[in-house]
Amino acid sequence: MNIDCNIDGSVDVTGCKLSIYPMSDNFAGIITNAIHQLDALKLPVWQKTDLFSTTYRGRQENVVNIVKAACQLAYTESVHTVYELTFSKGCPGDTDADHYLNEEITPIKFEHELPNIPVACKYSFYAFGDADYMKDIEKIVNMAEDKGLNPEGMHYATKLTGSIDDLFDYFNEALSYAHEHIRHYVMEVTISVNSPSEG
Amino acid sequence: MNIDCNIDGSVDVTGCKLSIYPMSDNFAGIITNAIHQLDALKLPVWQKTDLFSTTYRGRQENVVNIVKAACQLAYTESVHTVYELTFSKGCPGDTDADHYLNEEITPIKFEHELPNIPVACKYSFYAFGDADYMKDIEKIVNMAEDKGLNPEGMHYATKLTGSIDDLFDYFNEALSYAHEHIRHYVMEVTISVNSPSEG
Repeated sequence: MNIDCNIDGSVDVTGCKLSIYPMSDNFAGIITNAIHQLDALKLPVWQKTDLFSTTYRGRQENVVNIVKAACQLAYTESVHTVYELTFSKGCPGDTDADHYLNEEITPIKFEHELPNIPVACKYSFYAFGDADYMKDIEKIVNMAEDKGLNPEGMHYATKLTGSIDDLFDYFNEALSYAHEHIRHYVMEVTISVNSPSEG
Repeated sequence: MNIDCNIDGSVDVTGCKLSIYPMSDNFAGIITNAIHQLDALKLPVWQKTDLFSTTYRGRQENVVNIVKAACQLAYTESVHTVYELTFSKGCPGDTDADHYLNEEITPIKFEHELPNIPVACKYSFYAFGDADYMKDIEKIVNMAEDKGLNPEGMHYATKLTGSIDDLFDYFNEALSYAHEHIRHYVMEVTISVNSPSEG
């Protein structure tokens, strides 16, 4: 059985697999409402939904913008919600629909402004290949410090706290840096809002 | 800032970071009830809970058994629940509390039998270091086929379907194989039960 990234096609494609977990009896309505609002736009990325998540692939800035909007659209006051994001780039063979790399950077706009919510986040950055990328990863974590996201070490991950605007600005900066310096990487991100443990 | 695995101590320690997401207004009660039942036992592992998850570290078989029991204890009929598991082993510096490696393999037993529920799972296996581990990873995926878990390729991951008993038996076999052949690896797992999309 084939165990590459299961995609044919330019390794310059940035992918993000997004899962949304609203801890609410109305979880299905919350997710469906967010996805329908996004799908009403013409999105400049390739996308596919499966049992676990929706995968967006295309130009990095567009993927980051769309995933951020999806998180904001699913945000519901007082509902503890967790978002799982897997960013991936450089997997040999990840070239399917790579024409989306030619898309302009497209702002994702709605009639109502999307909320700049406070978030807690944990993430791990994994780099693959022969090179020793520890210095690059250290640089990427330090960029979070510069952004005011207060990185703290935890087991197998780094914790960040701040606003969703600052967090996704940071993701764009970190992924741009990684694009320049690291051939193949995965960033696993968990974002938590309205956690009762935070109070 | 230090960006190793944030632990002092033998790289033979297996760690698993577990998050449980019940899509229910009663999510906190479901999680607390499961954790309290587990904590009533004397667990043969190191553990720590943070805002996002609980991390269990120790001998591989014990870590796998405990995480499985936590998933079963949190299982609630008709409640769509997602479990996120990050298995990690071999991170340089992951030696804190490594005396737990000397523990016997301990069955996790309750008065009531825990349910052998049907599950859907996606997972990604990441290996680090200079060596080319593709053949080992292929072998690990093929072990799922032998176990009857029906592996299917999807973007950036492999999907499995089966029972929770077979799935965790497979995790133990896969991690044992990895232990013998791969110096440093991470396995990211998402398990879904009672998904309305599955029906």
